[in-house]
Amino acid sequence: MREALFHRLTIKGGHFGPNFGMVEATIAMHYVFDSPKDKFVFDVSHQTYPHKMLTGRAYGYLDESRFQEISGYSEPSESEHDHFVIGHTSTSISLATGLAKGRDYCGGKENIIAVIGDGSLSGGEALEGLDFAGEMKSNLIIVVNDNEMSIAEVHGGLYKNLDELRATDGKASNNLFKAMGLDYIYEPEGNNIEKLIAVFEKVKDIDHPIVVHVHTQKGKGYTPATIDKENWHWCMPFDRETGKPTVSFEGEDYGALSGDLILKKMKEDKSVVFVTAAVPGSVGFPKENREKAGEQYIDVGIAEEQAVAMCSGIAKNGGKPIFGTNATFIQRTYDQYSQDVCINNSPVTTILNYSSVLGLNDVTHLGIFGISMLSNIPNLVYMAPICKEEYLAMLEWSIDQQEHPVVISMPGNGVHGAKYPVDTNYDDINTYQVCRQGDTVAVLALGDFFQLGEEAAEEIEKTLGKKVTLINPRYASGLDEKTLDELKKNHSVIVTLEDGILDGGFGQKVASYYGGDDIRVLNFGIKKDFYDRYDPAELMKENHLTKELITKDVCAYCS
Amino acid sequence: MREALFHRLTIKGGHFGPNFGMVEATIAMHYVFDSPKDKFVFDVSHQTYPHKMLTGRAYGYLDESRFQEISGYSEPSESEHDHFVIGHTSTSISLATGLAKGRDYCGGKENIIAVIGDGSLSGGEALEGLDFAGEMKSNLIIVVNDNEMSIAEVHGGLYKNLDELRATDGKASNNLFKAMGLDYIYEPEGNNIEKLIAVFEKVKDIDHPIVVHVHTQKGKGYTPATIDKENWHWCMPFDRETGKPTVSFEGEDYGALSGDLILKKMKEDKSVVFVTAAVPGSVGFPKENREKAGEQYIDVGIAEEQAVAMCSGIAKNGGKPIFGTNATFIQRTYDQYSQDVCINNSPVTTILNYSSVLGLNDVTHLGIFGISMLSNIPNLVYMAPICKEEYLAMLEWSIDQQEHPVVISMPGNGVHGAKYPVDTNYDDINTYQVCRQGDTVAVLALGDFFQLGEEAAEEIEKTLGKKVTLINPRYASGLDEKTLDELKKNHSVIVTLEDGILDGGFGQKVASYYGGDDIRVLNFGIKKDFYDRYDPAELMKENHLTKELITKDVCAYCS
Repeated sequence: MREALFHRLTIKGGHFGPNFGMVEATIAMHYVFDSPKDKFVFDVSHQTYPHKMLTGRAYGYLDESRFQEISGYSEPSESEHDHFVIGHTSTSISLATGLAKGRDYCGGKENIIAVIGDGSLSGGEALEGLDFAGEMKSNLIIVVNDNEMSIAEVHGGLYKNLDELRATDGKASNNLFKAMGLDYIYEPEGNNIEKLIAVFEKVKDIDHPIVVHVHTQKGKGYTPATIDKENWHWCMPFDRETGKPTVSFEGEDYGALSGDLILKKMKEDKSVVFVTAAVPGSVGFPKENREKAGEQYIDVGIAEEQAVAMCSGIAKNGGKPIFGTNATFIQRTYDQYSQDVCINNSPVTTILNYSSVLGLNDVTHLGIFGISMLSNIPNLVYMAPICKEEYLAMLEWSIDQQEHPVVISMPGNGVHGAKYPVDTNYDDINTYQVCRQGDTVAVLALGDFFQLGEEAAEEIEKTLGKKVTLINPRYASGLDEKTLDELKKNHSVIVTLEDGILDGGFGQKVASYYGGDDIRVLNFGIKKDFYDRYDPAELMKENHLTKELITKDVCAYCS
Repeated sequence: MREALFHRLTIKGGHFGPNFGMVEATIAMHYVFDSPKDKFVFDVSHQTYPHKMLTGRAYGYLDESRFQEISGYSEPSESEHDHFVIGHTSTSISLATGLAKGRDYCGGKENIIAVIGDGSLSGGEALEGLDFAGEMKSNLIIVVNDNEMSIAEVHGGLYKNLDELRATDGKASNNLFKAMGLDYIYEPEGNNIEKLIAVFEKVKDIDHPIVVHVHTQKGKGYTPATIDKENWHWCMPFDRETGKPTVSFEGEDYGALSGDLILKKMKEDKSVVFVTAAVPGSVGFPKENREKAGEQYIDVGIAEEQAVAMCSGIAKNGGKPIFGTNATFIQRTYDQYSQDVCINNSPVTTILNYSSVLGLNDVTHLGIFGISMLSNIPNLVYMAPICKEEYLAMLEWSIDQQEHPVVISMPGNGVHGAKYPVDTNYDDINTYQVCRQGDTVAVLALGDFFQLGEEAAEEIEKTLGKKVTLINPRYASGLDEKTLDELKKNHSVIVTLEDGILDGGFGQKVASYYGGDDIRVLNFGIKKDFYDRYDPAELMKENHLTKELITKDVCAYCS
């Protein structure tokens, strides 16, 4: 099985450590339980490759021509052995309590087994799930796959308890799981199939919830991955001999640019603090930057709610917090932004990576919902820069200002240099930048769709023989009514572009604003849907997001 | 202080039990700590009346003419002793960790004290906060106010541990807080000022986080409130002698109607299950209905993430889950709807109470964000019924169908009877009901703004002398493109009304749809903002939400 993992991962990349660590446990689970009648729910589901191999999908690991058929996550459309599409952490226990309750209501008898890694345990949803399970009175088996790691190192007090439990062979008198009302059993040899079979046999068909705490080794079977667990959590295609990636990215990226600027600000001001919820690498804080930041860096572990609310508290007591994460994970924190941050108008800066249709394309990790979710929360200033210089200027301004909660999305279309003047002061919220003045048609191209808007504007100019107005709206959370009113005077078509779903987004606000006017508004963006493993160019085309299609649509209104 | 509480609460109503239980603890806290330098963060902040009395705001309890000046929650604009606007549960520990971190970065020395009720402990944000605090190395005092109650009875395994800790005078070897890495101290006499002073003196200026577990009596000082703790959590104006409310609501309400229908469905089908997160009363499940529902009723406690994810699991394993809550609390679950429910297309039914500008008017409990938050999540069907018969028909359809996650908002403008035919089958998602056919002007009046739309349509008819088209859109999450296209033929003005903020809502989708057409679209709804203790009629007027103002605005486009 590990050979099959090597085959896929060296060529295609994917989650390495979690899968190498779970080979034996997966075999034992399938040996003891009767899937799909008995139901496994894998947390995050980035450790399901061995499970997939044992449930008819080995070709997805053995046959390079079929790699694409198998997703990196749990996927019911692939197999009846998968019960949910899962990609965010800390959901498995709650989902499993639901399967167990459904079973009880419908008179079923099967085993329900949640498998959750220690890194995911700190998430609020998982802890709520444990607490609820502690009161249940029917079969539920919670396998805690303890490999002493999250993506980066684990964080939070509960890990001290896991340490203690491992050190005492599960016998420590103080036990988080028992404190939550749960039965508990410990298996130190989590990579020993026979031991695991014995422990699973023992809990099979149990009539109440129990936690099976198994100690596994992340990355087991490949020395480099057992040494540098963080970097081998997920891997690019690599050379097995050397462990070196076989593809490389040249040039700048917004993560590194962010890290450099934030470290500079930290040096100048000891109250600048960077907060992450277990994904430091993708937002500019790989290990070397964490070491430079020292105490001014906080990883709360997988606990986004804690991260956001804590940032509000830091800001209220004089600090300058910056929270960085991937756009998809911000979804955990709608209420924390609304209640803890925005009602209190706490000057928290948030930087979002992968907030683009051009970013992560697994259905569970889409970056196209951020504007729709965040920009409609009062007081929140959502900024969408168009280039490197503007991104850095906005970030620096946001760290220094004390008036607003600010979210800044990192452009997802590569690092572009400035072609137009870049402001340093953004105090005048919701003011657009008119980059080129024309008439008849105005293109409002938000954030990283600016370059597309610029190309489309040029194409429209060529077609119509008229100079087109090009605008960088900069803010997604409010309208520049003065500029919009100005446009009315000599424009008849307004085009909006945004890198996200149209529903609840930027363009619809513009359309509503002009609703009473004799002016056409054409909104370009992504149709609301859950897309999975899509081809970005193809999806852009389907949504008319090419300079040719935009020009065609626009010119139909300019005859 | 209790006399002052009686004075305000008998006349104005408010949170009873939490405040009566916290009198002694609040006095002791203010005696020992030096507020506002030392900072208190009260969870939910519905227990802050005694704190407000001791910080210059006693007039808000003693002087009836000044009751309105003081909010029912923590409010920094009232006093420097309040540090956050707070109204949702389970946030205090996270906010306090932030204050503590801010203090450390800025070189401060003050005490940071979070006060959290046992009911709030089950919330994911609180558990994330505890876990994070367990790794901190500076001053943080977490007062756990254990009164053995949430709003209704407490739920979850951790309460067994609190029982055990109380039973052993805090000495039980298994201790949730210690398992989270925290220091711990127990005070059994949580209504004894001297004992409390002693314990707070002991922890004052401590150099690491500690949990102070105090056992208080909810409603202490008023016998009826100590007997029926659930009903005395919050009270209407009442007569102190009899304990009976002095105001009464006659007639039907949507909570009771929901409860009746759901109980009927439960009898017919043992897999129908109603789920609440600690607010059963407001969504149709007061005690008598809970008893009737038996095992088909689940209160997860304050744990909305668990509730929603569990519902997805129940639905996937054959059950028919209905989750009921207040619109404001749904904000905790954006990601659970997106990931656990909607990507999986689990047929979970959600009923939302107070999803209206006419409902709760404290800034922390607004019902105007629901459409904007939920309706833009793919696969979710957001239904907005206009009357009792339609609400019940939609609810029954939703429980029976197996295709969609559905959210149904309870009308907030009283119980109206049907004036137009009501469908029983809503399978044909996103189809509007044309109630009256006219021309020139069409009014699309969503949900409980239908009656306002109807009145406005009549007024416009009178003014223009033309029959106006009146439409019940029924669905907020998608457009009926066929009907919208049909309207183009002989209408020049489309009016949309919705009970929620305009940004990200229903009307802006309609405006966008018509963006390329020579047709005016006027969106009526609430301007995005955080409103506090507003007068609903006044706010409606400010937003032109009266039949006269709508008519005036519309007729300006019909000359």
